[in-house]
Amino acid sequence: MSLTVVGSVAYDAVETPEAKIDRALGGSAVYFAAAASLLIPVNLVGVVGEDFDRSEIEFLRARGVDLSGLTSEKGRTFFWKGRYLADMNERETLDTQLNVFESFDPVLPESYRTSPYLFLANIHPQLQLNVIRQSRGTRFVAMDTMNYWINGTLPQLRETLAAVDGLLINDSEARLLSGENSLFRGIEKIQKMGPRIVIVKKGEHGAILKHEGELFICPAYPVEQLFDPTGAGDTFAGGFMGYLARAGGINRASVRRAMLYGTALASLCVETFSVERLRGADLADVEQRVERLSRMMALD
Amino acid sequence: MSLTVVGSVAYDAVETPEAKIDRALGGSAVYFAAAASLLIPVNLVGVVGEDFDRSEIEFLRARGVDLSGLTSEKGRTFFWKGRYLADMNERETLDTQLNVFESFDPVLPESYRTSPYLFLANIHPQLQLNVIRQSRGTRFVAMDTMNYWINGTLPQLRETLAAVDGLLINDSEARLLSGENSLFRGIEKIQKMGPRIVIVKKGEHGAILKHEGELFICPAYPVEQLFDPTGAGDTFAGGFMGYLARAGGINRASVRRAMLYGTALASLCVETFSVERLRGADLADVEQRVERLSRMMALD
Repeated sequence: MSLTVVGSVAYDAVETPEAKIDRALGGSAVYFAAAASLLIPVNLVGVVGEDFDRSEIEFLRARGVDLSGLTSEKGRTFFWKGRYLADMNERETLDTQLNVFESFDPVLPESYRTSPYLFLANIHPQLQLNVIRQSRGTRFVAMDTMNYWINGTLPQLRETLAAVDGLLINDSEARLLSGENSLFRGIEKIQKMGPRIVIVKKGEHGAILKHEGELFICPAYPVEQLFDPTGAGDTFAGGFMGYLARAGGINRASVRRAMLYGTALASLCVETFSVERLRGADLADVEQRVERLSRMMALD
Repeated sequence: MSLTVVGSVAYDAVETPEAKIDRALGGSAVYFAAAASLLIPVNLVGVVGEDFDRSEIEFLRARGVDLSGLTSEKGRTFFWKGRYLADMNERETLDTQLNVFESFDPVLPESYRTSPYLFLANIHPQLQLNVIRQSRGTRFVAMDTMNYWINGTLPQLRETLAAVDGLLINDSEARLLSGENSLFRGIEKIQKMGPRIVIVKKGEHGAILKHEGELFICPAYPVEQLFDPTGAGDTFAGGFMGYLARAGGINRASVRRAMLYGTALASLCVETFSVERLRGADLADVEQRVERLSRMMALD
């Protein structure tokens, strides 16, 4: 069993009300793989530039992440700079330099093509669809997207949505994509676009799952201090997909428990800059939080 | 077993982005009693003016609410006018006329004084304490409060907090009272002020319970349309206290299930103006939502 992720590998500069960092390992595929690799072997597809220091992702290889799909191109690595406002729920982008990511055209290495689980992080929906078409025998494909693609490339996005099993997006994206202010009505509309599993992430307010006809509402894990939310959504996706791949089947119990794994991993992510906490964590840390969270949700 | 509530009886004028109403029955004690009376006999303490039409609360009497503690005074009934902004999470007060409520000095009728459950809705903390001192053999006392008392009468509020078993407040009030931005740290600080049960209400994002050492996180019940949030917090309190009184004991299972009853009743409240939906509901409607919500929280 393995899980393939296609997404960005980046350097981020982040400012929060409490601290700042000028250059930290980031990118959707990195956060995803750092989380999922605690649960299942991961195949990573991405691109970096000449400035990228591969030793920074050596911990992923040590955890069983196959990096043969990570290509190097002339130029610099994708760079993002952002600042979080006082309540940490809002952020502003100060700088985006796509660099080598601008011409990213993901190709699955042959050994990845039969991977049964596939996650398409936030990239152009046409590229997401191209990846789906390269894969064979995939059992479960999920994707992320963002406002930019919803506003700018909706026809392509609709085509990709019709080809996936799952969609993970945040609440504002769900409202934009569905045109509904009510998240619950919005989720129903989005399911009609294709994905039988829709997950809406609400940051500190948890996440909502609709799996076929049933809702599951999962609170966020209570963290002592929200230090840096960057990457929390991709980390959630890594925990969710990693657990599903490990469980080996998509059913009511596995998707619900997968939500708790996503939540637990996201809570580790936000406690430090970059992937520092995820890098130091092991499966026991994750399972302790899953267990605690399940007690906070239990009726007796 | 009975439950006493002390609070306001009011007329409200409400504007939402979708609709408006110029004069509707409201007030914390009314919403509370409309909810709790589906579960347990309720004693109500409040005050109305000469303009109050008692036929509007006849449905409460028909549900077993004892209104002998509802006094009439010369003057007009408490009036509040407010407007909800587009996302319904924020509202502005357009007019407040305290009228007869300004000199409200609640006195428990003799028959209420041995009521084992007591809820003190949002009034001056000194008045709340006076009521506690009038009661005998009370088994569980809970209270609400608001920014105005936290900012203006903190010493009296602290004295009242030290005398209650439970506090129900919203998230912004919890942050203000505790001085902590993290709700979880804030709740711990508030517990040290007295109440062994602290409930923080987060509107559409649900509610958090801390009961002694344990957290319980309860999502909001997904409503088709949030029509008017006025009274949702008092309705939640009515459902919570009503269930506890009905269950007859304060323990891990009863407080958790009480959260679901509060949540289910609040979801009915927000579907119409005033107490219209609560007036038409029966216990089966509430229990259906409790059951559905418990399935949305279940891991298997």
